[in-house]
Amino acid sequence: MATTLKLILFLLLSLHIFSLVSSHRPHPLDPLTPSEFTLVRNIVHKLYPSLKLNITLQYVGLDEPDKPAILLWLSNPKSKQRPRCVFVIVRLDKQSHEIIVDLATHAILSDKVYNEHGYPLLIYEEQLAAMELPQTYKHFIEFIEKRGLNLSKVVCSTFTIGWFGELKSKRVLKVLCFYVDGTVNLYIVEYYDRFIVPVPKAEGTECRESKLEPPFGPRLNGATLVNPYGPRFKIHRHTISWANWKFHLGFDVQAGPIISLASIYDLEKQKYRQVLYRGFISEMFMPYMDPSEEWYYKSYFDSGEYGFGLSAVSLKHFVDCPTNAVFLDAYFSTNNGTPAKISNAFCIFENHAGNIMWRHTESSIPRKVFTEVRPEVSLVVRMVTTVGNYDYIIDWEFKPNGSIKLGEFYQLENYFLKNIRITNKSHNKFYNYLLLISGVLEVKGVTYTHIDQIKKNVHGTLLSENTISVYHDHFLTYYLDLDVDGKANSFIKKNLETIKVTNPSSPRKSYWTVVSETAKTESDAQIQFGLKQAELVVVNPNKKTNVGNNVGYRLIPRSVAHPLMSYNDYLQIRGAFTNNHVNRKIENKDIVLWYTIGFHHVPCKEDFPMMPTFGVGFELRPNNFFDSNPILKTRPPYIVHLPNCTN
Amino acid sequence: MATTLKLILFLLLSLHIFSLVSSHRPHPLDPLTPSEFTLVRNIVHKLYPSLKLNITLQYVGLDEPDKPAILLWLSNPKSKQRPRCVFVIVRLDKQSHEIIVDLATHAILSDKVYNEHGYPLLIYEEQLAAMELPQTYKHFIEFIEKRGLNLSKVVCSTFTIGWFGELKSKRVLKVLCFYVDGTVNLYIVEYYDRFIVPVPKAEGTECRESKLEPPFGPRLNGATLVNPYGPRFKIHRHTISWANWKFHLGFDVQAGPIISLASIYDLEKQKYRQVLYRGFISEMFMPYMDPSEEWYYKSYFDSGEYGFGLSAVSLKHFVDCPTNAVFLDAYFSTNNGTPAKISNAFCIFENHAGNIMWRHTESSIPRKVFTEVRPEVSLVVRMVTTVGNYDYIIDWEFKPNGSIKLGEFYQLENYFLKNIRITNKSHNKFYNYLLLISGVLEVKGVTYTHIDQIKKNVHGTLLSENTISVYHDHFLTYYLDLDVDGKANSFIKKNLETIKVTNPSSPRKSYWTVVSETAKTESDAQIQFGLKQAELVVVNPNKKTNVGNNVGYRLIPRSVAHPLMSYNDYLQIRGAFTNNHVNRKIENKDIVLWYTIGFHHVPCKEDFPMMPTFGVGFELRPNNFFDSNPILKTRPPYIVHLPNCTN
Repeated sequence: MATTLKLILFLLLSLHIFSLVSSHRPHPLDPLTPSEFTLVRNIVHKLYPSLKLNITLQYVGLDEPDKPAILLWLSNPKSKQRPRCVFVIVRLDKQSHEIIVDLATHAILSDKVYNEHGYPLLIYEEQLAAMELPQTYKHFIEFIEKRGLNLSKVVCSTFTIGWFGELKSKRVLKVLCFYVDGTVNLYIVEYYDRFIVPVPKAEGTECRESKLEPPFGPRLNGATLVNPYGPRFKIHRHTISWANWKFHLGFDVQAGPIISLASIYDLEKQKYRQVLYRGFISEMFMPYMDPSEEWYYKSYFDSGEYGFGLSAVSLKHFVDCPTNAVFLDAYFSTNNGTPAKISNAFCIFENHAGNIMWRHTESSIPRKVFTEVRPEVSLVVRMVTTVGNYDYIIDWEFKPNGSIKLGEFYQLENYFLKNIRITNKSHNKFYNYLLLISGVLEVKGVTYTHIDQIKKNVHGTLLSENTISVYHDHFLTYYLDLDVDGKANSFIKKNLETIKVTNPSSPRKSYWTVVSETAKTESDAQIQFGLKQAELVVVNPNKKTNVGNNVGYRLIPRSVAHPLMSYNDYLQIRGAFTNNHVNRKIENKDIVLWYTIGFHHVPCKEDFPMMPTFGVGFELRPNNFFDSNPILKTRPPYIVHLPNCTN
Repeated sequence: MATTLKLILFLLLSLHIFSLVSSHRPHPLDPLTPSEFTLVRNIVHKLYPSLKLNITLQYVGLDEPDKPAILLWLSNPKSKQRPRCVFVIVRLDKQSHEIIVDLATHAILSDKVYNEHGYPLLIYEEQLAAMELPQTYKHFIEFIEKRGLNLSKVVCSTFTIGWFGELKSKRVLKVLCFYVDGTVNLYIVEYYDRFIVPVPKAEGTECRESKLEPPFGPRLNGATLVNPYGPRFKIHRHTISWANWKFHLGFDVQAGPIISLASIYDLEKQKYRQVLYRGFISEMFMPYMDPSEEWYYKSYFDSGEYGFGLSAVSLKHFVDCPTNAVFLDAYFSTNNGTPAKISNAFCIFENHAGNIMWRHTESSIPRKVFTEVRPEVSLVVRMVTTVGNYDYIIDWEFKPNGSIKLGEFYQLENYFLKNIRITNKSHNKFYNYLLLISGVLEVKGVTYTHIDQIKKNVHGTLLSENTISVYHDHFLTYYLDLDVDGKANSFIKKNLETIKVTNPSSPRKSYWTVVSETAKTESDAQIQFGLKQAELVVVNPNKKTNVGNNVGYRLIPRSVAHPLMSYNDYLQIRGAFTNNHVNRKIENKDIVLWYTIGFHHVPCKEDFPMMPTFGVGFELRPNNFFDSNPILKTRPPYIVHLPNCTN
């Protein structure tokens, strides 16, 4: 969606609870402070005084300076900075206004009505209003009572309706209501239209420890990391430095975590070198694979529609993050412009997973056998966002070897079983066009209690009696603005190609070699993985190693999933950014990688009612960026003997 | 090689330093004890009294009972077991004898001369003899003196010669010698035939901390895991039980670690259920991609030629494994049959990497928001084997969710630069046909100091002046005898196929669905990943979930690399087992998966002189094996508060 891509270009940075060093001049990427949010609110209300109460602020975020300004500031922090500006989207008379505010002069720099396709993301208050609307809606109340149900046990949630070619789409939500019958796992209890059908057993669907009955699984031990030398990372406002890494951690209501200005210290060159100007998840595309009336439209854009940042949850000490984690809060603007806080939206911790960074045992020289080992420690930045039934664990991991591991991305879900089928077609007021429909299962499958009964394609897996989970995809597109040792970068495909040996005297018949290919145009750089064996490297053609290799960073995929819907499918047209895994945008050679990862989810019993975490992800690894192994001269850790501890 | 596949069917299990419980009846898979090794030695020497001194024992391992016998014993440990037998390979008069010994009666059950292609792996003493041979060889000594070199500074290593179509291959080694000039990183110093050429700088190639000069990298903190509740795993002889897992850890001089009888406890069924009868790395294939005279033959089978087990190193506390690790020794037979010990060949530890096992925040019901999180703990079994310049870190990770993650396999290398070119063609005595040749670099590339000087294909990357690293592959084939809830299993491809929606009234144009395909024949089950989107599941067609799904385990690949050599290349003929990623052997429906993973290694500067670890691997994940999420009823850990510790 146009808005989606537009919005994510603006970011709101997180304000964390403490700064080790205080400073008066903010980093130009620093987030809006609560007082700045309030200032924005007053300026906007002054702009439309008569309409104060009808205005909703859909988005308030820093209007980020462009890259040259940021780089100038980096090279000379005392250089004159442009005044801090804020990008605001307000809804007013069913229109989306894009307003830019100058915080210094309080001036409105621009106020444009946005007329393109799409709408700003759904803010919390809108969804709450929609969720509560049915309880006040006459026909709905009658409907509930007619069935002898208790209105107080009806809970509703909001769902986007997708797009199917409309030239002018409406700002409309589907609201699905659930009947909560003794379990808060509200996707589980089944109720159907005008007559009762078998209800899936609630047994085994409870997930709250307090409500679980024995037998229990083994209690896995907790452990505390004791590190007498303390964590090595420093947080100064929003800039985090650890080992040889330095980066800025931002927060945006739509994208969630944003990593900016990541650079790594080069021991030989004795300076920090740029790696990643900015990276974040630009969108999450989740189409379902059931063409039936009740399900065909299901295709969510969790970032653009619901907001990864807006849906961020407060992380729990010790279980969401290990004992050595440090937590940071995040702030955002509510619909009326007053700032709100998400406590512990981020955690940052040194990861001691017991891996080895490098090792070698040399035994070729009898009397000179030696072993050198360096255990691995990395730094993890974590945010968890919960969109409906999905929990996404977003990890950014920084390794001393120069690697950035992204999206050790996990998801968990439980399953939709809607329990009231209602249709209502009243129109013409904001949020009044509500299509309250049921989910899929009461339409087909709900009567099935065993696979043998299923004779047709049910587009999913029978997980328990009357419970079918529908096939779907998860595609995440990462925005990766790599600045490898500077802005001007090139995208290189190192194709591995087989060479046949024709010389009959050679015992070899073949070997492979590397044929490098520089992408000249965007289409050159459109790639589907798995089709060809190649290494993908973003290089700086203007910088060389001591023997002349282009310095670069390599993209190492972990799992490969190609979209399986036809390109003319409306869902796929919206999700067209997933057609290729890598899609280069050229901005005066300032390359941005749009990298899509994902997986096709064929649900299985183990995913019911809660799916164990499933990881996909990828790695950005230095490739001739350094002149030699950058961790060769990392000394082994001090031995920490098991201490005497008293709890 | 025939021998390779033959040998790995026999395994020698590790004897660890302590048992929590002592027992008199050994597990039928338990390894040979030192006294059993000695007994074998005496029996073999009695068999060939006159030849005692000319006999070398190339392999001594338990002659494992077949699966029915093991399963019978499992069901009734009191049932009569066949006597313990040992499989021995001895070299005698240039022949390989395969001998089976009955430990109870001391009888020789069989003594066959092995006449097929291939030879047993190289034992330590043979390699040592070959390494020392040049120093006693007249022509070699003259050669060294002629060059004014110091013989005591010459170190030699042994290299297999590959196979290039010979009908009867010789048991021959290439011995490469290096001149150690102030660094033990003996691959680095360069010397060439009859004249001096530029010598690669030794600077930056030292890896011993004691010898490193500042500036140093940041010292990464060590950390101690404090777990007041102690580790949850128990080791009884060679059987390890932890959380819901139970398995047997074996050791073989060729394969290294062998996991047998892995089964998982089903909370609902209240019993252990079989998953993996046996799994290990059956071979490691490493072809180089330089067709030149000096390099064309380089293609190593590190398991079959050098032995992963024989090359296992003693793990160092705290750096190779975290502080909470428990270590186990391994035993093997020397050439004369006396037992030898590898201290700390294995480490076993609970892994607290800070991951999340499952979580959900439910906020749809305003007054009933809840969050449930279960942090992940897993159990890791680790062995490290060093074959020449490669260190392989072999991890088996068991997760409470039923997953087995294999081969979070890392490798590290430094680079060959041979420094003496010698040819010598004397024949006719065991080990006397020595081809002492140089490596690649003095032939081409050695004069290059910058990439711009290179005008032809050098089959590698210029890593530093005069130093080129040659392209090569790493392919590991895993032997995975899955017994999913029993022996009789089937191999199913769940193909994800696009369905076009032809009904014009439907807003959808397409969706994907799952079309399952049961492999009837072995060729049905030959698969190259990446060509088609499919899930691969080993199922037990005789066992169903409560709603009728086949119980199964899914193979989830992580990285995909296809061989790039032509199939008629002798190297690829030997490595033909890598042609397909999955190759099913059918043994009365007792399926064995031969799964090949690997990667093409295009070396880069960061790999010099020591390569940071690089991970490939895969996951075996339950797929409708359980009726529901098996960790749903795992309670959260006790909170462990940061204790007061005194070091």
